[in-house]
Amino acid sequence: MKYVRFSTNDEVKYGVLDGDQVHQLDGDFLNGEAKKTDTVFPLCEVKLLPPVKPGKIIAIGLNYALHAEESGKPLPEEPMIFMVSPSAVVGEGEEVFLPYLDHRIDYEAELAVVIGKTANKVSKEDALSYVIGYTCCNDVSDRDLQKKDGQFTRAKSFSTYKPLGPVIETDLNPNNLEIKLSINGEVRQHSNTNDLIHDVESLIETVTEVMTLEPGDIIITGTPSGVGPLKSGDEIKLEIEGIGTLTNYVIAN
Amino acid sequence: MKYVRFSTNDEVKYGVLDGDQVHQLDGDFLNGEAKKTDTVFPLCEVKLLPPVKPGKIIAIGLNYALHAEESGKPLPEEPMIFMVSPSAVVGEGEEVFLPYLDHRIDYEAELAVVIGKTANKVSKEDALSYVIGYTCCNDVSDRDLQKKDGQFTRAKSFSTYKPLGPVIETDLNPNNLEIKLSINGEVRQHSNTNDLIHDVESLIETVTEVMTLEPGDIIITGTPSGVGPLKSGDEIKLEIEGIGTLTNYVIAN
Repeated sequence: MKYVRFSTNDEVKYGVLDGDQVHQLDGDFLNGEAKKTDTVFPLCEVKLLPPVKPGKIIAIGLNYALHAEESGKPLPEEPMIFMVSPSAVVGEGEEVFLPYLDHRIDYEAELAVVIGKTANKVSKEDALSYVIGYTCCNDVSDRDLQKKDGQFTRAKSFSTYKPLGPVIETDLNPNNLEIKLSINGEVRQHSNTNDLIHDVESLIETVTEVMTLEPGDIIITGTPSGVGPLKSGDEIKLEIEGIGTLTNYVIAN
Repeated sequence: MKYVRFSTNDEVKYGVLDGDQVHQLDGDFLNGEAKKTDTVFPLCEVKLLPPVKPGKIIAIGLNYALHAEESGKPLPEEPMIFMVSPSAVVGEGEEVFLPYLDHRIDYEAELAVVIGKTANKVSKEDALSYVIGYTCCNDVSDRDLQKKDGQFTRAKSFSTYKPLGPVIETDLNPNNLEIKLSINGEVRQHSNTNDLIHDVESLIETVTEVMTLEPGDIIITGTPSGVGPLKSGDEIKLEIEGIGTLTNYVIAN
C-alpha cells in the first residue's frame, strides 16, 4: 500500500495512492486507525507533500562499501549515527536551493525507513514490526561544510536539503531494492540495498539501543557510490524499486 | 520569572515558581498566552519535570577555550553544530543511567537556551527576542563512543544523558553567568558564560541560518573545562547563576 500526504485547496490530507487515484483517509495513517473515505482525487489534481513530517531524522554515514571507498574512509564497524534537522524536508516536485555557489553540494540517494510505532531497545528480529513503510530521501550535503565542521549536521540540514517522498510503501523487503539516481536523465548512482553494510534491521537495533524513535521519525540508511555535485537547473530523479520516483529541481542564488 | 513544568497526581502542569510556591498556569507557557490561575502548590509537594520537552536539541562543541585545550582540539572558527536525541532528557532529581561500566562517561555543565518562537535566519541583533529563557543542561557524554564514532550523536543521546532544568529563567543576560558543576560536593567545573567563544546571539544566528527552530527547541551552548568521569553513586549538582541548581544521581548496571 502506498500512503501519501497531500494538499488540495491548501488543506493537508492523508491518503492511499492506487494507480493514479488518491483515496482520502479520515486521518493521519501514523495514528494507526485511519480509514479510507469515499473521497477520491485524481493524482494530477493534488499537491503531494512530504509523506511525513519527521520529528527526528537519524542519518547513517558510510553504509555502502563502494561509497566509503570513494569517500576515502574506512568501513565503520558499527553504524555511524548522526542527526539532521527535520526543517530541511521538502516534498515531490519541490526545489532544492543551494545557498553557496562556491561550495560543492552533492546529491545522495537513500532509502528512508519510516517508523510507525514508538521503538526503544528493539531487537533485529522485531525491528521491521516498528516500521510503517519506506520512502526515498535525497541526503543533499555541503561537502565544504561537512569537511570544515567534522560533525555532519550543519552540512546536511539547510532548508530544502532533504527531499522526501513521493509515497510511503508499506509492503517491501527493504534489503533488496534497486536504488538509482539520475541528473538530467543521466544515471549517476545505481545500486541495491542488498549492498548495505548494516541492514535495516541492524540499523533499527543500534539506533533504538540509544534513543527512542517515535511514529514519523525516519532513518536514512546511507548512500551508494556515485555521489556528485549539483548545479542550478539540474533535475534530480531518485527512484527506489517498489516505491517510485522522487523528482526535484535545483535552484541557486 | 521562573517557568516550571511539573506533575501532581501524575498530571502534567505548567507553572511559575515564586520562592517555594508554584503558581499553576492555565496552559503551556510556550504557547505565549498562558495565565496564572489561583491554584498554588508548595514546591515540595510537586514533582518537577524537565521544563520543556524539546523537539530538537542543537548542541555546540568546543565553545570554551579551556575545554577545547583540555580536549586537545583546535578552536572552531565557527560554532560546531551537532544534534542529540530529545529522548535523552530527564529532569531535576532524576537518575542518570550508565549502561557501559567499561566506558568513560563524562558530565558536561552547559547553559541551555530555550527557544520561544519560530526562528529562521535570525540576526545576532534580534536573536534574544526568540528566546523564552534559560536553563541548565548536563551534556553527559560517552567518550569511548564519541571517539569511535567521530560523530557525537550516539555518544550523547542515550536515555537519561540530558538532565535539564530545574526551571526556565526568563530574565537573564545569558553572556555573563557563573556556571559550576560539582560531584559529591566537590567543584569540578567553574566558569562564566562570558568565556563562551561564540556568544548566545552568534549561536542563534549561525544555527538559524541553517535550520528553523521551533518553540521548545533548545541550544546547549558548550561546556567549560574540568570535564571528568561519572561513577555509580555520584551526586551531580549543576548550578547556573540566576537559574538555580539541577541535581541528578548516577546509577549503573
